[in-house]
Amino acid sequence: MSTKIKGIAASDGIGIAKAYLLVMPDLSFDKVTITDPDAEIDRLHQALDTSVEELKTIKDRAEGHLDTEVLTIFDSHIALLTDPEMIKQIEQLIQTQKINAEQALKQVTDDFINTLEAMTENRYMQERATDVRDVTKRILSHLLGKALPDLAGINCPVVLVAHEVTPSDTSQMDKKYVKGIITDLGGRTSHSAIMSRTLEIPAVVGATDATKKIQNGEMLILDGETGEAISNPNETELQDYQQQAQHFELQRQEWAKLVDAPSVSADGRKFEIASNIGTPTDMADVLKVGADAVGLFRSEFLYMDDSQLPTEDEQFDAYKRVVKVMKGKPVVIRTMDIGGDKQLSYLHLPEEMNPFLGYRAIRISLQRQEIFRTQLRALIRASKFGQLRIMFPMIATLEEFRQAKTIFNEERQKLQADDPGIGDDIKLGIMIEVPAAAIFAEAFAKEVDFFSIGTNDLIQYTFAADRGNECVSYLYQPYNPGLLKLIKHVIDAAHQEGKIAAMCGEMAGDAVALPLLMGMGLDEYSMSSSSILRTRSMMKSLDTTKCAELVDHVLDNALTNEDTQKMVKAFLK
Amino acid sequence: MSTKIKGIAASDGIGIAKAYLLVMPDLSFDKVTITDPDAEIDRLHQALDTSVEELKTIKDRAEGHLDTEVLTIFDSHIALLTDPEMIKQIEQLIQTQKINAEQALKQVTDDFINTLEAMTENRYMQERATDVRDVTKRILSHLLGKALPDLAGINCPVVLVAHEVTPSDTSQMDKKYVKGIITDLGGRTSHSAIMSRTLEIPAVVGATDATKKIQNGEMLILDGETGEAISNPNETELQDYQQQAQHFELQRQEWAKLVDAPSVSADGRKFEIASNIGTPTDMADVLKVGADAVGLFRSEFLYMDDSQLPTEDEQFDAYKRVVKVMKGKPVVIRTMDIGGDKQLSYLHLPEEMNPFLGYRAIRISLQRQEIFRTQLRALIRASKFGQLRIMFPMIATLEEFRQAKTIFNEERQKLQADDPGIGDDIKLGIMIEVPAAAIFAEAFAKEVDFFSIGTNDLIQYTFAADRGNECVSYLYQPYNPGLLKLIKHVIDAAHQEGKIAAMCGEMAGDAVALPLLMGMGLDEYSMSSSSILRTRSMMKSLDTTKCAELVDHVLDNALTNEDTQKMVKAFLK
Repeated sequence: MSTKIKGIAASDGIGIAKAYLLVMPDLSFDKVTITDPDAEIDRLHQALDTSVEELKTIKDRAEGHLDTEVLTIFDSHIALLTDPEMIKQIEQLIQTQKINAEQALKQVTDDFINTLEAMTENRYMQERATDVRDVTKRILSHLLGKALPDLAGINCPVVLVAHEVTPSDTSQMDKKYVKGIITDLGGRTSHSAIMSRTLEIPAVVGATDATKKIQNGEMLILDGETGEAISNPNETELQDYQQQAQHFELQRQEWAKLVDAPSVSADGRKFEIASNIGTPTDMADVLKVGADAVGLFRSEFLYMDDSQLPTEDEQFDAYKRVVKVMKGKPVVIRTMDIGGDKQLSYLHLPEEMNPFLGYRAIRISLQRQEIFRTQLRALIRASKFGQLRIMFPMIATLEEFRQAKTIFNEERQKLQADDPGIGDDIKLGIMIEVPAAAIFAEAFAKEVDFFSIGTNDLIQYTFAADRGNECVSYLYQPYNPGLLKLIKHVIDAAHQEGKIAAMCGEMAGDAVALPLLMGMGLDEYSMSSSSILRTRSMMKSLDTTKCAELVDHVLDNALTNEDTQKMVKAFLK
Repeated sequence: MSTKIKGIAASDGIGIAKAYLLVMPDLSFDKVTITDPDAEIDRLHQALDTSVEELKTIKDRAEGHLDTEVLTIFDSHIALLTDPEMIKQIEQLIQTQKINAEQALKQVTDDFINTLEAMTENRYMQERATDVRDVTKRILSHLLGKALPDLAGINCPVVLVAHEVTPSDTSQMDKKYVKGIITDLGGRTSHSAIMSRTLEIPAVVGATDATKKIQNGEMLILDGETGEAISNPNETELQDYQQQAQHFELQRQEWAKLVDAPSVSADGRKFEIASNIGTPTDMADVLKVGADAVGLFRSEFLYMDDSQLPTEDEQFDAYKRVVKVMKGKPVVIRTMDIGGDKQLSYLHLPEEMNPFLGYRAIRISLQRQEIFRTQLRALIRASKFGQLRIMFPMIATLEEFRQAKTIFNEERQKLQADDPGIGDDIKLGIMIEVPAAAIFAEAFAKEVDFFSIGTNDLIQYTFAADRGNECVSYLYQPYNPGLLKLIKHVIDAAHQEGKIAAMCGEMAGDAVALPLLMGMGLDEYSMSSSSILRTRSMMKSLDTTKCAELVDHVLDNALTNEDTQKMVKAFLK
């Protein structure tokens, strides 16, 4: 009989395939005193050999469809498995202490891991610790006679069922076989969800006990638009969803025709649909979908990828690359937003009770001015190669913006000594993500060039609910009328002063939010590149006057998130 | 020469006395191999004996001026110091391992502490761990020949200079000798600050390096109104501040005459000035200052004082006691606000990345309904003994309030089966502390009976800045015009529907905020009892029409927290 599972819709599309359960087996064991150390050492070697064979097979199969970078991980694992120093230590422990191979393995590898992890300044050694941990699991699985899940070995269509999907899982799987993803944990802004949207894989997250309800190998239907999944579907359900999947595919093909089309409403009002990017390599996708701009270039990758601060030239190169590719279209670069959930060991930031309410983003930049000034110089220099805009994150007060602007002006003046006029056309804007800035938008609008509403953080703070915390995920309420009122206030305040109002949170690419935001007159919609064509297509069908009426109707009548959803859905019908 | 030190004004008044530095000496040591274990054991016993003597002296001196409860702590410390089992273990370690007494002591006591702390369900054992830690420090100080600070031994007037002041420090000191407190850490809402205001001790907090700049024993002046301190003052400064202190004392005497006076403005508008309380024992202070109401009774103490949930009857007794004492004046009881920084081991709440944005207060109550229903029943039963109001904390959405109200109605109906009409006159209100509720106050005002603005949390969330985090303390901005606009919106929304608007955060007792809040027409001001008479006195001198003009002037012209401060100060002159 078919079973329905309900979660949070995280990435559009229908996935139909056999379930592949990504669940770690129980690898716990007891410490045992043994009598025959030689036999135990034999057991160890068998497990080591099998592990090497297994890794070689996985690697061979993966060759061709996985990145070279991922393949080298397998090589380092094989090297570890044949490391004579490590093997000798384990053997000695078995001989001298008469303990079982599992225990000896654990003691030796724990030591290795601790030593490696203690080198907190060295990212390479930290990664080696992860390798040792992975390899230990593999050897243990063979000692205990249990099978590890083998993501890289997936070679037929599956729907992935997991507790959660980590970035390392993602790197190992061949995306063409993954027809859908359903996870127990996560919300619309979790890694699993964002990754699925980027890769255009249908996904449902936060389904609580999907890994318990779904059996490995049974047929699974997943609807990424409604957040529903059906395991063991009957014939009717299967046909129904296959049709929907086909329809979705056709729609995608329609959307593909809009790559070079302008972003306009049914009544001809022009908007800007832009991309959020994390690194210059994301520009391929930006060009593929014909984004009107880069609405958010997160500069953090420059700070996270290394064990020291990026130099001015490293930054300049990255910014220049993106700006040049866009050939005069706007590129909004956000100054570093570290702190919060993004920690940098080499900066020695304080440990905090509530990092999301702590020392992060502009709060760090204004204090650690040497870091901030380096970034600003790189940005000003890169502005020569296109239309570069600078955006400050986490601005809460006017003083913060004024300070940042003063520092920007100082650095620009210095650079202008050698290069008159450089940076004169740079627009300075702020993220609207702290409620204080949203509430007081009318004052900010007089002093900044543009706003970009960061809805992920704005919602998190407005509802006082950590967006990574399952217990309060019900408070992620983008359609709550109070929040909509606040967003409208921000847009109105910008327009009152003739400034641009943009949005770069998840909400900007949300189909229910779109008619509301168009009705409020939001100018720019910045989202993951994979959502751009769907949004452009939907925009074409919407009339801004009717959208504005919808906004009035919602703000006059809706009292809850759900009320709004119903009204928008009725409007779209 | 005199030195000026600047911090955050935390508790009004002038303190002049010698500085008493509350600084832990460095108790670190090296592990040493010794040759004469017997001599080492002698050293240990000398340190143990001196520690016992010292504790006895402290206890004798403290008898009479400290609570019995505090005195028993000294007895348990003495018992620990003479525990034969512990002493034997340390001696054995010295004998067998040939290590120094410091190291042996540490190994044995660490073991004890770990064992005790592992009993997470047992608050008694947890407290014993603290005792072992304290006693170890005392023995170590004698082994190393260093002196511990001795709060309980203070027997002449001092100004306390500390890194920060903990609740355990507070319990040990004789308040009559502490003429002022200055701390390196803390903001206006830290423990040190709140405690100082409650005890009416002048205080300056967040003074960064007061413990480094001020020498033990030198004369110190502390101004709790400006946040300044002067060490080694010259004769003129000393005379000047002695005069000010006298003036402050006279003012206090004036205020004392207002105990039975109504809380009215210069133009005769009546307001309510109420007390925030934490336990029924705080009622003595409430009566002493003649509060018009209890505006916030935090019910958490019932949940934190024990190793299990309080029973319905235990709660009923506590609520009834407070309500009865107030003889028909309103008592607003807030349902449990645990989670956040208030964890209960026996509830097994999840570990969270950002507890202030997590599972707390009403969010727990609505899920753990058995706990919530017990509390509501106790409240409804206690309502027979006076005017009891119920307030729900951390409400972010209308659905949350509606759910809470439904559960309340269900429990009331059950109780009415036996006692018709019970709880019919209970008013239900909400804390306005989540920005979402403040922004959407007009919708809430239609469904609730009253608002109470919790400014501590509201400011924390509105500025996305943890109020316990030094790095972002500059974002505690009660006079920021954006925040003031939001507060005015909440008050207006309440009045539009004929509901009461109250405030129960720190801001309600703030002298700069008072004219603004009176100008906005805030109905009830709830604060620590120690601020009530000062506020009532100031209220008498203010004209509400002029205050309303001030509000208009500020909202039209101020752009920053500082702008507002200047305008209010000019107004008050």
